[in-house]
Amino acid sequence: MKKLGLLCLVTVLSLIICLSISAAQPSQEPSLWKVYQQSLKSAKYVDLTHTITPTIPVWSGFGPSKFSPTINPKTGKPYSYKQDGFEATHYDLSTDQLGTQLDPPAHWNPDYPSIDELPPTFAVRPLVVIAIQDKVARDPNYHLTVKDIQDWEKKHGKIPEGSVVFVRSDWSKEWPNPELATRTKFPGVKLEALKFLHLQRKILFHGHEPLDTDSTPTLEGEAWLLKNGYTQAEGVAHLDQVPEKGALVAIGYPKLKGGLGGYARYIAICPPDWKYGVSVDQIPESPLQKADKPLHWDEKLGVRVR
Amino acid sequence: MKKLGLLCLVTVLSLIICLSISAAQPSQEPSLWKVYQQSLKSAKYVDLTHTITPTIPVWSGFGPSKFSPTINPKTGKPYSYKQDGFEATHYDLSTDQLGTQLDPPAHWNPDYPSIDELPPTFAVRPLVVIAIQDKVARDPNYHLTVKDIQDWEKKHGKIPEGSVVFVRSDWSKEWPNPELATRTKFPGVKLEALKFLHLQRKILFHGHEPLDTDSTPTLEGEAWLLKNGYTQAEGVAHLDQVPEKGALVAIGYPKLKGGLGGYARYIAICPPDWKYGVSVDQIPESPLQKADKPLHWDEKLGVRVR
Repeated sequence: MKKLGLLCLVTVLSLIICLSISAAQPSQEPSLWKVYQQSLKSAKYVDLTHTITPTIPVWSGFGPSKFSPTINPKTGKPYSYKQDGFEATHYDLSTDQLGTQLDPPAHWNPDYPSIDELPPTFAVRPLVVIAIQDKVARDPNYHLTVKDIQDWEKKHGKIPEGSVVFVRSDWSKEWPNPELATRTKFPGVKLEALKFLHLQRKILFHGHEPLDTDSTPTLEGEAWLLKNGYTQAEGVAHLDQVPEKGALVAIGYPKLKGGLGGYARYIAICPPDWKYGVSVDQIPESPLQKADKPLHWDEKLGVRVR
Repeated sequence: MKKLGLLCLVTVLSLIICLSISAAQPSQEPSLWKVYQQSLKSAKYVDLTHTITPTIPVWSGFGPSKFSPTINPKTGKPYSYKQDGFEATHYDLSTDQLGTQLDPPAHWNPDYPSIDELPPTFAVRPLVVIAIQDKVARDPNYHLTVKDIQDWEKKHGKIPEGSVVFVRSDWSKEWPNPELATRTKFPGVKLEALKFLHLQRKILFHGHEPLDTDSTPTLEGEAWLLKNGYTQAEGVAHLDQVPEKGALVAIGYPKLKGGLGGYARYIAICPPDWKYGVSVDQIPESPLQKADKPLHWDEKLGVRVR
């Protein structure tokens, strides 16, 4: 019994010491920095964004965009690495609805925020991926239903409030085939599913791979979302490389005044044991890796390439 | 002694139960989602980005940029909320070096990555803010020194590897005064300080409020960084509203092929008890808040305003 008493004393003392140590840690390293060191640093990062070029699929009603080298106004000639030591790029973008998007509601309703008016809390969120690519393979015009969402929830639990929900259809596997933008049948999201996600689950926004929310003649889903003050992501890529549950998504876009679309950047932050993506320590970042060929302007392609 | 034995047994049992519960949690909620629920959701978000307009300060060598409403190629007229139910924006941007920036090294060296070639790990990092605004108030041409960095470290501890280090000078308080871009004296960062941050502390990148890294005739700091494969942030804003230690920064920018600048978005993610910023539950996000005036195209300003 004496031994048991001693054991008990040791246990209690150890417990006290352990608790003191864990309580002391936050004062040494700030809590959010600890989040980075313990969770974000070892995570696997997967880019969900298409690269924007002048020839990516875009609705014909917006017309083409053009890239060119930035011109020196004094000489009328492009800046060049050789002559000037640097180069820059001139973009003539016919629309802010280009590439991977974040649609602000002001795209359809001027009473709601433009892209620069979205709050800074659009930054990092839980990412839910609902996969409908098997159904889309059988019916290219398949649209996500409330039942698809409920099936996801049966498997993974309730969709968290404030999360971003991306619909995987594998439509983007054909990107950048320009014909993609001309199809009248493509995988979409049913209006009821959008209403369920926003009104019942209170998500931040949903996103899809195609350039429109649904294939109805009135674009009823996009109309409901944007006219009522919701945002949405379009042209999302690489959803085959992220888990259905458990990743975060980093949301970025330029802050162009009065802008009605966002040339967005979505990066999935996946668990460290995830099979796709790279983590911070796996690649050279600073300095970055030298390429095997130099970047140069390609007149024919109208873009800088290697 | 018997009582002590019983107490011991209860302590050990409680400990086992506690440990089991904490071990069971991850299977219910994924670890990264828990990071969001416990740390990121209640954090305070502060935007460190200038809004891009056609009249913000920019180097005269790049010439002016222009915004206009997107034109319907069929009618030659701008899309309008009234006629078409939506609007979009046409951007004629003379340079990708505009507004709040992320400079990829290919801006000066074609052997290194362009903006679309940066790895997806440029997403969320610890944010260090080194304040030199008091020295800048006395000398508008003051440049951050190695000693300033060492003084920061004496107070706050070693700068974490892979972090983003922003230099607060309060230069941006005069933004968007176009005269800012013409000044030859402005707060900078000494080359030795850049080398210390990258070679000794192995940071991801540094950032500053002005549009150049230093006021030397050869831009020696920017030259060293970009020619050697490092990135940097320029035109960073609102550094007076973030803590010197303990915040994270979300990094976003559009993925324009072969691009040599980034219309970047930096959002500071600050501790929940921080005095500035908004947290997720404090503002309407989905739906967003209606504005009191509708957005409309202003011919004179050349931008959409309320």
